[in-house]
Amino acid sequence: MRLAVSMPAIAGEKTAKHRREEGLMEHRDLFPAFVTVLALLVYFWNMMACGRARARHGILAPATTGHPEFERALRIQGNMLEQLIVFIPALWIFSLTIQPLVGAALGLIFVLGRIIYSVSYASDPAKRGLGYGLGALPTVILLVGGLVGVILQFVAEG
Amino acid sequence: MRLAVSMPAIAGEKTAKHRREEGLMEHRDLFPAFVTVLALLVYFWNMMACGRARARHGILAPATTGHPEFERALRIQGNMLEQLIVFIPALWIFSLTIQPLVGAALGLIFVLGRIIYSVSYASDPAKRGLGYGLGALPTVILLVGGLVGVILQFVAEG
Amino acid sequence: MRLAVSMPAIAGEKTAKHRREEGLMEHRDLFPAFVTVLALLVYFWNMMACGRARARHGILAPATTGHPEFERALRIQGNMLEQLIVFIPALWIFSLTIQPLVGAALGLIFVLGRIIYSVSYASDPAKRGLGYGLGALPTVILLVGGLVGVILQFVAEG
Repeated sequence: MRLAVSMPAIAGEKTAKHRREEGLMEHRDLFPAFVTVLALLVYFWNMMACGRARARHGILAPATTGHPEFERALRIQGNMLEQLIVFIPALWIFSLTIQPLVGAALGLIFVLGRIIYSVSYASDPAKRGLGYGLGALPTVILLVGGLVGVILQFVAEG
Repeated sequence: MRLAVSMPAIAGEKTAKHRREEGLMEHRDLFPAFVTVLALLVYFWNMMACGRARARHGILAPATTGHPEFERALRIQGNMLEQLIVFIPALWIFSLTIQPLVGAALGLIFVLGRIIYSVSYASDPAKRGLGYGLGALPTVILLVGGLVGVILQFVAEG
Repeated sequence: MRLAVSMPAIAGEKTAKHRREEGLMEHRDLFPAFVTVLALLVYFWNMMACGRARARHGILAPATTGHPEFERALRIQGNMLEQLIVFIPALWIFSLTIQPLVGAALGLIFVLGRIIYSVSYASDPAKRGLGYGLGALPTVILLVGGLVGVILQFVAEG
């Protein structure tokens, strides 16, 4: 395991070249990678809540209806999936053309928004607005910022 | 903001090393990144059309049926999601093992196909064929080309 | 085509620098890239089975119900999509912070599990357990391992 070997390395000593030779991630990529994993853990929690609601109400696959609690859990999971397909690529493109730390900070707001969305939607779908907005706003900023970032870097590099 | 600093750089002067130290994307990655953002903007437009149809026909969450216009908008968005999960990774793997410009050109055909698909499906689901095919064909080429590209590069590098 | 040029290169001679100048993928990335393509081919097969079931039973878009065989095919495809959004990013983050070969091996178990899931679910949804577990277990390991890998690399690099 290369990690065991690289652990004692003096902080900052490791160059981009060494990192690549060991097959490790660029340092700047650790920020969007960390936020990606957090967002996927929220999604994983959504999936487990959905599976539990299916079992609790005895709804057999492939049925996707049968009890309001299950249907809400299924929509929470489905909506997270719909958001993740935009969020993850936008987070990375923004982070690599604008700024990894700003990208990660926006990503953490997304993660927080999705937790609020999941809890509030499960209790009452009508209350999903705040969490939805808190999840959608950083995604829009990451996507539009990523577009601007790609164009600016392209122009700068000719 | 590093971009402000890097903007005045003489075109072509920036090396891969400088780019990494500033945390920027490799130049070759700008092509698939640009097309990824365009495809996500089409999806975003699909999501907004779906939300508007839900509101217009007073269909309360978590219902996924209730009016043909909403159901069409939901399928357009759902189908785009189903395509994006293949398209985005295939675009990147093709671009990084075969050719970024060819990958981006195929990706632009996908984006065009999905716009035609969205407009024609919304007017009449039976007319979705052309747009669907124009979206699916480049995706298949990117996926099969990506498989060939990975194998060729692996063989070439031993 | 750069691949034609790079093919005769003596194995191992190509450095990371040359690879980047030609726009090629880092060698370590070929392992998760290969597994990503395989997983997408399984999904593609799921999509085609779903389209065929829709046609066979004359179910017109945008309907998502109408015959058990079609509904099962739709859930198989939908479930694969739900898994891929976690699997693909987790596979790459694990591979680039822990180990590409271990990541790829776990990914191959996922691919095998999803093939078993697809076949068994299509014959009888109640038999989907083994394939589902065989797909989900490596995904959980990749995701949790990716989280640990990001944190360890961050700590090691200060």
